[in-house]
Amino acid sequence: MTRYEQGWRKLLEIDGQAGVAVTESLADIAPDLAKYVVEFAFGDIYQRPGLDLRSREIATIAALTALGTATPQLKVHIRGGLNVGLSRQEIVEVIMQMAVYAGFPAALNGLFAAKEVFAQGDEAGPSK
Amino acid sequence: MTRYEQGWRKLLEIDGQAGVAVTESLADIAPDLAKYVVEFAFGDIYQRPGLDLRSREIATIAALTALGTATPQLKVHIRGGLNVGLSRQEIVEVIMQMAVYAGFPAALNGLFAAKEVFAQGDEAGPSK
Amino acid sequence: MTRYEQGWRKLLEIDGQAGVAVTESLADIAPDLAKYVVEFAFGDIYQRPGLDLRSREIATIAALTALGTATPQLKVHIRGGLNVGLSRQEIVEVIMQMAVYAGFPAALNGLFAAKEVFAQGDEAGPSK
Amino acid sequence: MTRYEQGWRKLLEIDGQAGVAVTESLADIAPDLAKYVVEFAFGDIYQRPGLDLRSREIATIAALTALGTATPQLKVHIRGGLNVGLSRQEIVEVIMQMAVYAGFPAALNGLFAAKEVFAQGDEAGPSK
Amino acid sequence: MTRYEQGWRKLLEIDGQAGVAVTESLADIAPDLAKYVVEFAFGDIYQRPGLDLRSREIATIAALTALGTATPQLKVHIRGGLNVGLSRQEIVEVIMQMAVYAGFPAALNGLFAAKEVFAQGDEAGPSK
Amino acid sequence: MTRYEQGWRKLLEIDGQAGVAVTESLADIAPDLAKYVVEFAFGDIYQRPGLDLRSREIATIAALTALGTATPQLKVHIRGGLNVGLSRQEIVEVIMQMAVYAGFPAALNGLFAAKEVFAQGDEAGPSK
Repeated sequence: MTRYEQGWRKLLEIDGQAGVAVTESLADIAPDLAKYVVEFAFGDIYQRPGLDLRSREIATIAALTALGTATPQLKVHIRGGLNVGLSRQEIVEVIMQMAVYAGFPAALNGLFAAKEVFAQGDEAGPSK
Repeated sequence: MTRYEQGWRKLLEIDGQAGVAVTESLADIAPDLAKYVVEFAFGDIYQRPGLDLRSREIATIAALTALGTATPQLKVHIRGGLNVGLSRQEIVEVIMQMAVYAGFPAALNGLFAAKEVFAQGDEAGPSK
Repeated sequence: MTRYEQGWRKLLEIDGQAGVAVTESLADIAPDLAKYVVEFAFGDIYQRPGLDLRSREIATIAALTALGTATPQLKVHIRGGLNVGLSRQEIVEVIMQMAVYAGFPAALNGLFAAKEVFAQGDEAGPSK
Repeated sequence: MTRYEQGWRKLLEIDGQAGVAVTESLADIAPDLAKYVVEFAFGDIYQRPGLDLRSREIATIAALTALGTATPQLKVHIRGGLNVGLSRQEIVEVIMQMAVYAGFPAALNGLFAAKEVFAQGDEAGPSK
Repeated sequence: MTRYEQGWRKLLEIDGQAGVAVTESLADIAPDLAKYVVEFAFGDIYQRPGLDLRSREIATIAALTALGTATPQLKVHIRGGLNVGLSRQEIVEVIMQMAVYAGFPAALNGLFAAKEVFAQGDEAGPSK
Repeated sequence: MTRYEQGWRKLLEIDGQAGVAVTESLADIAPDLAKYVVEFAFGDIYQRPGLDLRSREIATIAALTALGTATPQLKVHIRGGLNVGLSRQEIVEVIMQMAVYAGFPAALNGLFAAKEVFAQGDEAGPSK
């Protein structure tokens, strides 16, 4: 299995359709960046042993909330966190904790992103 | 038990002597901020149910690595991560993953901080 | 008076209805964060003696403009600044000065936020 | 020729109508900041010898992509880059490279900004 | 009086010898940036009516604490704040408040900077 | 030639011995991150056609100056810029320009980094 194939499988497992959409959105402007996302982010990093996917999504949600500059990607990974087994409550706790390290506005804006993602999940019907 | 007492207990459990040192360093300039660290960060946030301490330290290490502006606090929490049961390997994985979300310099500088903390642990003799 | 009551009073004094709206927006996802905003931000910090509210709002407007990641909160505090006695001109001066410390885009985007807040004030009729 | 006149000429050369629009948007709230943009940014900095305009726009596009807090200004300078002779491909390369230094979300969001600017150029008919 | 002369006078009033040192440190690498600091930051911005110097220094100290990337400049402006009449207590309050907007690490690191500046003031003997 | 070999060649061409030192500094803590730096940053990104190395180093120096969180990496790339043909003057211009987009402190701290790198070059004797 190539790095790309490994990465694609991992991307589907974590981000599902939202991850596919990101790669498609790059098709007409920078298809190679989509390739690097698959190969490096998912094929190299997320498939590494030594840290489970649940922990990896906690790390990503925390970082994107703290940075405050990547709302679309934060939403993808809040969905990703649900996909790999985090509960809504756990995700909310991670985001709230960022008030301590990046200030209350970062935590507030992270929660507003989570609210949108959770609402879409509710519309999609029961499951998670 | 007051918020302060709860927070102090939690601070000792997570950050140990390094956490005590932070509060002491504020004694002559802003003792109330030390009080808020204990009461709010540890007494309110870290003692919340709904997310285990291991996951909380993963979130904090990820965020501080990504922000890149808080090296002293990152070091305290790398030590804190070890204290609550993260392995060195898991901490390294969290920091490396930040290359994807905050760039390679953030990951590199986070790893250099971890290297210092681990080296101090080695000098202190076997244990963790 | 509890910390919550003190904080709520202070929140009303500074942010008025916009502050209430923030706490309400958290009700269904993270009501405890709304509680911490009231207790810690307003009950602990803003009620402290040693710095008047006018100066506190200058500090907040400056910081949120410089960070550039918290437009909704910046708008709340521009309104808050007017509420505690800053003039529009003073608020504009604070934001403009951020060009020196955080670059022209930060100052420009801060001014666009101020423009929106001032326009809402104009619609609401004469007063400030 | 005054600093203002020099700056205005340079602003027109680089940013064209989009630059004029920025100064106009400040007219009713902070006309002096528009004056400083013209005088300092364009009259002092961009007119300096020692670095060609192509290189200056590469630097600006890279920095605004990496910061991730200035999307409107990034769009103005992507257009500016085209105006001073950068190809779409070169601009895409600069933005993609930021994945290494500021993370993939910064590069993705920069590319989405570029996509919008390029689409407007396509609508405006053939030329660049 | 030229912009440079006005700016130099203002720089001396606010930052004193520390401001002079900044301009001198640029003499052999980028003397024109020193010129722009004097002309734009001090000659254009700080000399503007509409906001008193005390308020301007509050804004600058708040922003530099929140950004967390400019410790040397923060120290210069903590000294500057004392020079234009802020008390140590007021400066400490401004920095502490940043815990709410930029997180506790930003406030802690800002206070450590203040501690250094105040200690130098103590050594220099009684006065402020 | 593998991605690693291509990347290593490119890393040597751009960063020279300073780049090798970075990879070595990771050997005992996260050798795989050194591998990713070589493979992804240099083997994938820097070897791409479509943008010359001179322009790539301008972009990197601009971004790292603007971010203000990566001084060690900024120094490596200032050296790298000299290695691929940028003059000291051009590097100084790129850094100065960041005053417009990220504020004067970012530009000042970038210039202090450049000063150190240039001084080491002077000690090493004539050449660049």
